[in-house]
Order: sequence, then structure tokens, then C-alpha cells
Amino acid sequence: MKKAVLIGLCCAVVASSAAYAQFAKTDDAVKYRQAGFTLMGNHMGRIGAMLKGDKPFNVDDVRASAAIIDFASKLPWEAFVPGSEQGGNTKAKAEVWKEGDKFKQHAEKLQAATAKLSEAAKSGNQDQVKAAFGNVGQSCKACHDNFRAK
Amino acid sequence: MKKAVLIGLCCAVVASSAAYAQFAKTDDAVKYRQAGFTLMGNHMGRIGAMLKGDKPFNVDDVRASAAIIDFASKLPWEAFVPGSEQGGNTKAKAEVWKEGDKFKQHAEKLQAATAKLSEAAKSGNQDQVKAAFGNVGQSCKACHDNFRAK
Repeated sequence: MKKAVLIGLCCAVVASSAAYAQFAKTDDAVKYRQAGFTLMGNHMGRIGAMLKGDKPFNVDDVRASAAIIDFASKLPWEAFVPGSEQGGNTKAKAEVWKEGDKFKQHAEKLQAATAKLSEAAKSGNQDQVKAAFGNVGQSCKACHDNFRAK
Repeated sequence: MKKAVLIGLCCAVVASSAAYAQFAKTDDAVKYRQAGFTLMGNHMGRIGAMLKGDKPFNVDDVRASAAIIDFASKLPWEAFVPGSEQGGNTKAKAEVWKEGDKFKQHAEKLQAATAKLSEAAKSGNQDQVKAAFGNVGQSCKACHDNFRAK
């Protein structure tokens, strides 16, 4: 029994080191995930401004922004490493680590939604973009409500 | 003569507003460009660790990192908007704006180098990756030496 626990602990340490190895400090992990969110937030704002009519709807700009959102949506998740609950100026709630499976589901839902936004942008159809954009926005909000401090 | 100057100024203001429009505040522009650099820096570190032998050379990891570096290398430049010389915690030197053409050349050289790194990663050949990685690193350094505060 004790041996099994020790082996388990040993594996956990190795797994944890592997995750950490991509980030020299926990602050680096926080900066990395925030980089992905910064890009997503900025480009959601750009598409939103066009859909609201604050700026003319420009298909090329929508496509470029949607591609960046799609790409960036894949990045932040590996950077929620154990120990980075407090690093940098993170807004991540402890629930990210306490409810890991639920958090992962949100992350996957977002990535599915951003892929659809990118497809809609390629079509160039404003109604499709609007619907897909709304789904991405809802996905952002649902996760923020549960996992991000106000 | 006066009229031409006024029209010119007017255009400059419009152009400047268009650039600013992507960033509600200059701090947002700083955060945006730093997001791109954070991703590049992190993934250069990952490939570097494999090339130095600190970690085993894993072709899939190299490809993934090279693709992110390539993608991120296109992003920061539009965020060097006028007025963001002092925003956030920027390390950008005034030379970015004073020597705009030279800065642009550095940015273009980097993007050419990251595209080649991504190609080399696809080949899976470690020597090609090493050479291409070295060129990206030199491109980073040359720009930092000239345009980034220590």
C-alpha cells in the first residue's frame, strides 16, 4: 500500500515537473495564459465593433480576427499549472484546479465555438458570423462566471 | 499651402484613429504586442531547451512551438501605435517610432525567419531546425539591441 502511494506520488511529481518545465516560474505560466486571452479579447472586440455597426463590416478583417481567436483559443490551458493559482496578477479562481474536469469542458467548448467562428468568417456571411460570434461570447462568459474572479 | 497641410494633418488624424481603434487605450496596445512576444519567447525557450539537450528532441513539440512562433510573429507590429511609447510597462525605445522604417525591416526579417523555422520543423531534421532557430534568435536579438530597453 505504502509502496503504491509512493509510486503514485512519484508519478505525480514527474507529471507536474513536465508541466512546469514549459514555464520556468509560475508567473511565466500566468503571463502565457493571459497572452492567449489578451489576443482573444482584443479580436472579439474588433469583430464585435463591426457587428454592432461601430465600424463597417469588413470581411477580410473579420477573417483575420477569427483566425487569431481560433488559434489563441488553443493556447492558455496548459498554462494553468498547479501552483499558479497565485502567480502574477492572475484572476483565475481556485475552482480552475478544484473543478478541473468542468474547466476542461469549458475550454473544449470554447475551442469548438472559435473553430466555428473561423468557418463562418471564411463564408463571409454576416448572419453566420453573428451567430457564431454570439456562441463564442457565451462560451467566454460562462467560463468567466465560474472560473474568473471579478 | 496651408490647405494642403491641413488636409495632410486631417489624414494623419484619421489614420491614427484607425490604428487606435483596435486598442481602446494605449495600455491595451502594449498588452497586445507583449502577448505576441510572450508566446514567441516561451516557445523559443522550449525549442532551445530541446536543441541544447536539456530535454529530448521531440519533433511534434518542435512543430507545435514553431507554428506558434510563426503565427505570433505576425501580430505585435500593428500595436506599436503612436502614443504607446509610454503605455503600460513597455520596454519599447523611442527609436521604434523615430526609426520606423528600420524597425519595420527588423519585423519583416523576423517573420521571414520564423516562417523558415516552421518549415524546418515540418521537415523534422534537427540540423535544419537548429540553423533556422539560430536565425530567429539572431533576428530577435538584433531588434532587441536596437529597439528594446534593457
